[in-house]
Order: sequence, then C-alpha cells, then structure tokens
Amino acid sequence: MRILEERIRKDGKVFPGNILKVDSFLNHQIDVHLLEQIGEEFYRLFGQEQIDKIMTIEASGIGIACITAQRFGVPVVFAKKSQSINISADVFTSKVASYTHGKVYDVIVSKEFLHSGERVLIVDDFLAKGQAMLGLIEIVRSAGAVPVGAGIVIEKGFQEGGELIRQAGVRLESLAVVESMSDDGAIVFRG
Amino acid sequence: MRILEERIRKDGKVFPGNILKVDSFLNHQIDVHLLEQIGEEFYRLFGQEQIDKIMTIEASGIGIACITAQRFGVPVVFAKKSQSINISADVFTSKVASYTHGKVYDVIVSKEFLHSGERVLIVDDFLAKGQAMLGLIEIVRSAGAVPVGAGIVIEKGFQEGGELIRQAGVRLESLAVVESMSDDGAIVFRG
Repeated sequence: MRILEERIRKDGKVFPGNILKVDSFLNHQIDVHLLEQIGEEFYRLFGQEQIDKIMTIEASGIGIACITAQRFGVPVVFAKKSQSINISADVFTSKVASYTHGKVYDVIVSKEFLHSGERVLIVDDFLAKGQAMLGLIEIVRSAGAVPVGAGIVIEKGFQEGGELIRQAGVRLESLAVVESMSDDGAIVFRG
Repeated sequence: MRILEERIRKDGKVFPGNILKVDSFLNHQIDVHLLEQIGEEFYRLFGQEQIDKIMTIEASGIGIACITAQRFGVPVVFAKKSQSINISADVFTSKVASYTHGKVYDVIVSKEFLHSGERVLIVDDFLAKGQAMLGLIEIVRSAGAVPVGAGIVIEKGFQEGGELIRQAGVRLESLAVVESMSDDGAIVFRG
C-alpha cells in the first residue's frame, strides 16, 4: 500500500534492534484518515469473503479494527490481555509470549462474543514474531469459528511471524512489509 | 441520548456493587454503528468549539475516540497506562488510582503529541469516580493545552466523578447518566 509505505518512510522512526516506531500516526497518536484508507484496503482484499466479525487485541489494534469494521458493516471484538491467574470458564484463552515486554500473558475473549461457524477477520497493527496473532487464531478456532484472514498494517518481513501465520493455514495480507531497516533510518519494503 | 439508554437497558448487565457491564456493545464487543451515533452526538455537543485533537485512555476509549475523531476531522491521541517505575522525560504523566483494579498506575502521553495551546476534547466510555479523567485533564493542562470538554458515554451519576470534573472547570457532557441501579437489573437514567 503505497501511501502507507510513504507515511512509514516519512514519519516512522528506526531504532537499533530493528525497532520501528510509528507512534505519530498509528499507535499513540492516530491519523484516523489513514485508518480509513487502511480499512478500505482491507475491504478491497477481504471484501469478497463473508466476514461476520473483526477481531483484534488491545490496545493499538482497536482503532484499526473499528474503522475497518465500519467498512465491513460488522461488529468488533477485541481480545484482552491479562496476567491474572484465575481465568473464568466463560472465556476462550491462549497464552502469548511478548518479546517486547519479556513476559507471558493470557489473551482472553468472552465466549459470549465468539460462536461456532462465525467467519472472523483478525487485524492488528504489527506482525513480527507472530505470537499474538497465533494466539488469536487459536482462540478463534477453539470457538469453532473460522479465521478467514489476518490483516496486518505493518509486517516485519525479516521475522518469522508471516511464515508462522501461513503455516497455520490462514490467509495473510500485510499492507506494508518491511524487508530490512538500517540504524541510519533507511527502510526497505518488499515488492 | 435515547438510543444509548435503550441499548443499555436492553443489553447492559447489572451486578451487585453497582457494576454495569456493557461488554456486548461498548467495551469488549463493539457495535461500530452505535459508535458512529455516539460520535455524531459528541459532534452535536462540541462541534461549535474549535477542537484540535481527541484524547482518550487505553483500551476501551480508543474505538470511541477514533470514530468521534472521524466526525471532527482531527487526530486521536490515546494515553497509555503503565506501572513501570522509570518514566522518561519525554512524557507528560499523571498518577491515577483505579478502584476497579485496586492499584495506582501512571498515565502517560508523549510530549511529541500534545502541545501548548491545543484545544483537546477528552472522551471515555465510563465516568464513575473520575480519577482517570482527572488524570487526563491534568496531563492536558501540564502541556499548556486546553481541555475544552469531557465527553462521556456512560456516567454513573451516583458517584462523584461528574462533580469533580465540573469542579476542575471542564465542561462535561455525558450521553447517558445512570441515576441508580438495583440488583434486579433495573436501571434509572437521569432526566
């Protein structure tokens, strides 16, 4: 998605350790007009599928999910992160290792809001090692629902997340795939 | 807002201890069409003001803020919750006591995304004791920016938050004010 790549080049900040910060337009300050264009692109890619629900994980996926869901005309369900020990029987859950924060947390979705046979598009801001997305896919499948696709705004193509999602049998569409970043701030996109 | 009150009566769940759960349409599953109507109502209430930015706090305020911001044509900034000890010099911060979770956390906004003189509308899903909203107001003011208003989806009118926000000199508009709830599930709205 050309306009997204241009925005990442212009306003993204590269830090040592392959860190890409897009705080100024995607996950702290949010450019909602850009989100509309992102939602439109997800609709172009997945709009021919029957989609019953857009799923994401708190917090930075929520804005993307809501504006994408407007385009699809369906509700959003966002998974919650929890470190609580007591997980109720009323939830689907998956354990996810966060490399960014160096800990393991539970991802939780109430059984009220995910049903057998529902066709779910999962969206998120970043895909790197893919653990959060795999957790969401596991939750969707444990409900007997169908993960129709994974829509990612920015994929770090040099990490294994993309491969893992495809191995899980889920169609992956990433709007910008970063092939490499150098510490002087240069970003190379795939394709 | 009549349609919101009807939705709360229909789908809200009352639990002992004055707990009102609106998980099915506002803060776990999200009805984005309802959010569009909420954004429209905030625009009706605050649209005559100059608003440069919509601010909220993660996680459940983000969807409301994004769809409201579409209507205003301005960006969103969402404050982050942190329990980390090391707060960088690059952020505005405020300490907030959470009664729901029984702990104190830091609310953080990067100095990059909040500037002196900016006119900010703060939105959130719930107002009860008002501590999170007061923290956001403090952050806006510490930046030299102006908290033009607080837009709340559901206010618990029997708790002190509303009074505290007004005492802080900020215009408060709550789309539904719950006057009382009984354990049998009955909800009385103000006005």
